[in-house]
Amino acid sequence: MKIIRRKTKIIKIGGVAIGGNYPVAIQSMVKTKTSDVRATLKQIEELDRAGCEIVRLAVKDESDARTIKALRRKTRLPLVADIHFSWRLAMAAIDSGADKIRLNPGNIFKKNEIREIAAAAKQNRIPIRVGVNSGSVKGHQATASQRHESFADILVESALGYIKILEGFKFYDIAVSLKANNVLDTLEAYRKFSKICDYPLHLGVTATGLPFQGAIKSGIAIGALLLEGIGDTIRISLTDKPAEEVKAARAVLEALELRSFGPQIVSCPTCGRCEVDLVRAVKELENKIALDGKRYTVNGARPLKVALMGCVVNGPGEAREADAGIAFGKKEGLLFKKGKAAKKVSFSKCVDNLLSELEE
Amino acid sequence: MKIIRRKTKIIKIGGVAIGGNYPVAIQSMVKTKTSDVRATLKQIEELDRAGCEIVRLAVKDESDARTIKALRRKTRLPLVADIHFSWRLAMAAIDSGADKIRLNPGNIFKKNEIREIAAAAKQNRIPIRVGVNSGSVKGHQATASQRHESFADILVESALGYIKILEGFKFYDIAVSLKANNVLDTLEAYRKFSKICDYPLHLGVTATGLPFQGAIKSGIAIGALLLEGIGDTIRISLTDKPAEEVKAARAVLEALELRSFGPQIVSCPTCGRCEVDLVRAVKELENKIALDGKRYTVNGARPLKVALMGCVVNGPGEAREADAGIAFGKKEGLLFKKGKAAKKVSFSKCVDNLLSELEE
Repeated sequence: MKIIRRKTKIIKIGGVAIGGNYPVAIQSMVKTKTSDVRATLKQIEELDRAGCEIVRLAVKDESDARTIKALRRKTRLPLVADIHFSWRLAMAAIDSGADKIRLNPGNIFKKNEIREIAAAAKQNRIPIRVGVNSGSVKGHQATASQRHESFADILVESALGYIKILEGFKFYDIAVSLKANNVLDTLEAYRKFSKICDYPLHLGVTATGLPFQGAIKSGIAIGALLLEGIGDTIRISLTDKPAEEVKAARAVLEALELRSFGPQIVSCPTCGRCEVDLVRAVKELENKIALDGKRYTVNGARPLKVALMGCVVNGPGEAREADAGIAFGKKEGLLFKKGKAAKKVSFSKCVDNLLSELEE
Repeated sequence: MKIIRRKTKIIKIGGVAIGGNYPVAIQSMVKTKTSDVRATLKQIEELDRAGCEIVRLAVKDESDARTIKALRRKTRLPLVADIHFSWRLAMAAIDSGADKIRLNPGNIFKKNEIREIAAAAKQNRIPIRVGVNSGSVKGHQATASQRHESFADILVESALGYIKILEGFKFYDIAVSLKANNVLDTLEAYRKFSKICDYPLHLGVTATGLPFQGAIKSGIAIGALLLEGIGDTIRISLTDKPAEEVKAARAVLEALELRSFGPQIVSCPTCGRCEVDLVRAVKELENKIALDGKRYTVNGARPLKVALMGCVVNGPGEAREADAGIAFGKKEGLLFKKGKAAKKVSFSKCVDNLLSELEE
């Protein structure tokens, strides 16, 4: 089984292209007050180190908008200005060198205002994301239960209406998002939209809550869409530090084998059969790999696969399948190299043994 | 959009039925040495408190098998004996009162042995899970790259072959799992199998690694299958404490609205617009809800929805949609009750205010 990606239009956000056959890009959002240059820059750098490829900033006032100019000089990452309510802030952000503007059809909807923004974006050759969210979708006053039935349609209609306005001004440099606060509405909205329109899609679930539940919720929705070939860039919203959002986004793309960011670790959950502290060893392996920053790929392409398994049931099978793997028996483990049993290793040295095999 | 579940045969594991229209059941596995009664019982109790509905135990020797008798008297949860290599251990576990036996076609495959186990299981009216795992699938010696192409087929064939043997002995009280160590093979295997055969399916990905990545990987695979209506019981394997597996499984089922275990928390990721410490408030809310143990449902059915939002962009919309919600502006928040703005609340009292609304 392989994922066949939907063909979408290509747009460029600073140096990062999305759509077409470009890799699904990872984005996140800075959570500081944008005009606090020092704090914002620190968080942008954290995001960069974590593997974020596109950064969004809240533009709440003129001072936030002006700050983009200073930030633009200090980071290599594309900066997206998140605009709500005020078309003038969009103009100011474009003027400050934003690489993309996100507009919310729920709160900037006057045609003459959109015309001004589109003209400025066109002149500066930057795209606009039409970002529809369940919490701010316009013209929708029904009760919760009534809403639920056709809520996805409302999100899709809101986006399509806005796109029509932009296209009316001959503006086509567009990305689209349709975020509901739950998996089912989000899936339905993106599926419906992707059948109608080929602008690149920014995937996300809005207001997902705390990290663990939020990552699972986002993972399921974004994962299901990516499996169907839908999605050109993703953001996992978590009520947590932004670098955690990037970690989760990477995990989603790696799980689907759409991208790889390092060796793949295969380890068993352990059970009554396991006689070593496997959890500790796997954490040690993960930490060491994260610290040395090497990508461990086979000829720069497929990521290496490394297995750490607790017993003889699935251990030898998984370890043999991996590029390097250890299956533990009683205290001692058997190291496999490219499918062949190589040598016995003690538990205390297992991680270093695996790492030196990966180096080779 | 609503999930339409595939119709499967119904089987009973102790007091828990799976298949048909029964709720998707959550299971996990104890990680202690089973014969260590004290430690095993402690972990079973932790699993019970976390919401686990079926518990599996490794049966590695006669002493493990015998221990099931003592455990059976001390927990209400159904106990599944995980058997590998030795048909005699299966017999001993059945004799000790196991509520289900898991057999691995990769290591117990002699017809006469399977006949004995099936006869004993039938006499004791307990089901057998045919549990195929990528790490121990039989008769499969090809290299990794060759394997990958049709690996799902090999898992499916292994399960079907085993089922045929069991049915040959007129044994039909069967559940099936087909776990690969990656999302794509796992999906393909379950999809193919579910088109051929209607025994209830136990979903899982094997050897998924550490909690965060593992939960995302499992969430995507299990989530995608459940979305297609496939799956009657789930286990999320994590190299971590078993209660974490249950927490992740609950999050998956809640995200898909297949089951509910408490109020649904909607919260934004925060950004430069947010002027309160929302992360702290959401964590406090989550902790207090977990501690008081109430389910907060509307008439015992739909779970209550509670929103904590950081600013005026999506805040009022999400808070209005929730049964109770707060959208923050500058330091102060606006509390919504069933869609209507009710009163202003300070940040320090927001969680208690929300909880007392939920009580009502």
